[in-house]
Amino acid sequence: MIVADFSMIPMGSGTSASQYIRAVHEILKASGVKFLPGPMSTSLEVESFEELFRIIDAANGRLKDMGVQRTITNIRIDYRLDKEISISSKLGAVGP
Amino acid sequence: MIVADFSMIPMGSGTSASQYIRAVHEILKASGVKFLPGPMSTSLEVESFEELFRIIDAANGRLKDMGVQRTITNIRIDYRLDKEISISSKLGAVGP
Amino acid sequence: MIVADFSMIPMGSGTSASQYIRAVHEILKASGVKFLPGPMSTSLEVESFEELFRIIDAANGRLKDMGVQRTITNIRIDYRLDKEISISSKLGAVGP
Amino acid sequence: MIVADFSMIPMGSGTSASQYIRAVHEILKASGVKFLPGPMSTSLEVESFEELFRIIDAANGRLKDMGVQRTITNIRIDYRLDKEISISSKLGAVGP
Repeated sequence: MIVADFSMIPMGSGTSASQYIRAVHEILKASGVKFLPGPMSTSLEVESFEELFRIIDAANGRLKDMGVQRTITNIRIDYRLDKEISISSKLGAVGP
Repeated sequence: MIVADFSMIPMGSGTSASQYIRAVHEILKASGVKFLPGPMSTSLEVESFEELFRIIDAANGRLKDMGVQRTITNIRIDYRLDKEISISSKLGAVGP
Repeated sequence: MIVADFSMIPMGSGTSASQYIRAVHEILKASGVKFLPGPMSTSLEVESFEELFRIIDAANGRLKDMGVQRTITNIRIDYRLDKEISISSKLGAVGP
Repeated sequence: MIVADFSMIPMGSGTSASQYIRAVHEILKASGVKFLPGPMSTSLEVESFEELFRIIDAANGRLKDMGVQRTITNIRIDYRLDKEISISSKLGAVGP
């Protein structure tokens, strides 16, 4: 399992991004992957890089369809081989 | 209010970072700022850039004291003037 | 054209990352994409998200083959529709 | 020496960021730190976290003065203790 988080910042579309983030969450729901919205980014669990990238590609396509002319996407990927990781295991390892 | 998140990656100290993240959370608790651990980063609310940076500085110092020889820190800052933001308002704007 | 940059941080493999970054640059050279190494990340131009993601996937696979047990990858993507962008156009727009 | 890079994304101020990036580079020039503009971010060398953060704070203040209502700042910091690093040493270690 690969755990990642990403944020997408629309430029030239006002100061609020919430409608775009909600649209991206619809894509995540439809994809069936486990995800966790956070205040600065959305985390998700995927089986492969390909699955992650299909989602990022679709999310950029959705914002384009909504009229966004420029999107900056930030992705952080944790690819770990010595141990099985998940959103839960990573949250559990550090707290509370 | 400024909302930010950050992650710290120790290099040359094994594949597990959990003991270092717990140490950083101790700094956050002692600082009194509101923070929310996530699977890929920790979010926090601060009154000023200075407050944020004091915490990042202290966190790097702590890892140094724990023997980490190299730390990569990633910080994302949301500085918004047209609206009051917080961890709660940002989570509430997009979900569930 | 999409312009992006990325950095890869091997954990548990010592404090130096240079041999791994050189290996990733070999992948970039073999892929034929235009890229520009920087002090903190490597920038590249790609025709599509798919092309970008194929490279990131291959780079993570290379580090795995070199024995890295955990890799944190950070990607920033600039996807712009109202204007053709490139590494050169983005450098030229701001300086010197 | 600490090497870092950062990018600043103005939201709600059109799709072009070049005038804002140029303003930030003026701050960097005035600060006297060594910096290197890149296509996706600007790298810099600083003596301390405090010096880095003073610059980020000033840069956010400049964008505010220019009328930007929301700015997302991304910072990556390489804090290394086992070896002296610089923009040049980091570029030299991996290329050409």
